[in-house]
Amino acid sequence: MSKIKGIDHIAIAVKDLNKAVEAFNKLLDSKPEVIEEVPEEGVRIAMFKVGNAFIELLEPLSPDSTLAKFLEKRGEGIHHIALRVKDITEAMDHVRRAGLKLIYGEAREVARGNRKINFIHPKSLHGVLLELVERIKKGE
Amino acid sequence: MSKIKGIDHIAIAVKDLNKAVEAFNKLLDSKPEVIEEVPEEGVRIAMFKVGNAFIELLEPLSPDSTLAKFLEKRGEGIHHIALRVKDITEAMDHVRRAGLKLIYGEAREVARGNRKINFIHPKSLHGVLLELVERIKKGE
Repeated sequence: MSKIKGIDHIAIAVKDLNKAVEAFNKLLDSKPEVIEEVPEEGVRIAMFKVGNAFIELLEPLSPDSTLAKFLEKRGEGIHHIALRVKDITEAMDHVRRAGLKLIYGEAREVARGNRKINFIHPKSLHGVLLELVERIKKGE
Repeated sequence: MSKIKGIDHIAIAVKDLNKAVEAFNKLLDSKPEVIEEVPEEGVRIAMFKVGNAFIELLEPLSPDSTLAKFLEKRGEGIHHIALRVKDITEAMDHVRRAGLKLIYGEAREVARGNRKINFIHPKSLHGVLLELVERIKKGE
């Protein structure tokens, strides 16, 4: 996958977003760039900028979501990592050719069309849930 | 902590380093920059460059190490994240003032004196084991 731009974000599953925002605020000495609901992923998120990447805190929106089940089973902690790619379709083709399993058949648009994403299944990548993210700049 | 340069690496615990290197080699289309033993941390590592950061694969050197116990309990997967800081001593002071717990009383030199590191305890940071890394450029 030659068109990887770098790490996009590291996502951390938390039970109480406000409390976690407070802790990372203290640690990083900065406010989150955004706190918002992403209903299509069933989460409320806070994103802290760290260099060119983000630390993303994730709180489940409902107790029967995948994230809530993760928290129940494993507790709070690192949930997934994301690589920023130039072209999600090309990246997905590459991943399939490498014999790794994608979670969605097609890329999903999230955050009001600002990002296209897919995930590599942790079973095909040594237990790592790896997100691919194409960030779309509007008006280009 | 105003002197954070960015994400230094994401570390992934694996049972078989050679097998994991093969998978990430396919995914990233690149060879690891380095494969080496870090006996002072009880691990063998492979580092893949991704943008300005690294994906670090970690294999335990002995079955009674902390990492081997992590693998036994949780299986393969993301183990910790690391932030690159300008000055480890300053960063440690900041972390203490923020009320977070450090694992080592003093920073440790690893990788033949090329890096100074410490860790924030996951119990004080929402289940996240967070490493602080100062990279030392020799001859400067």
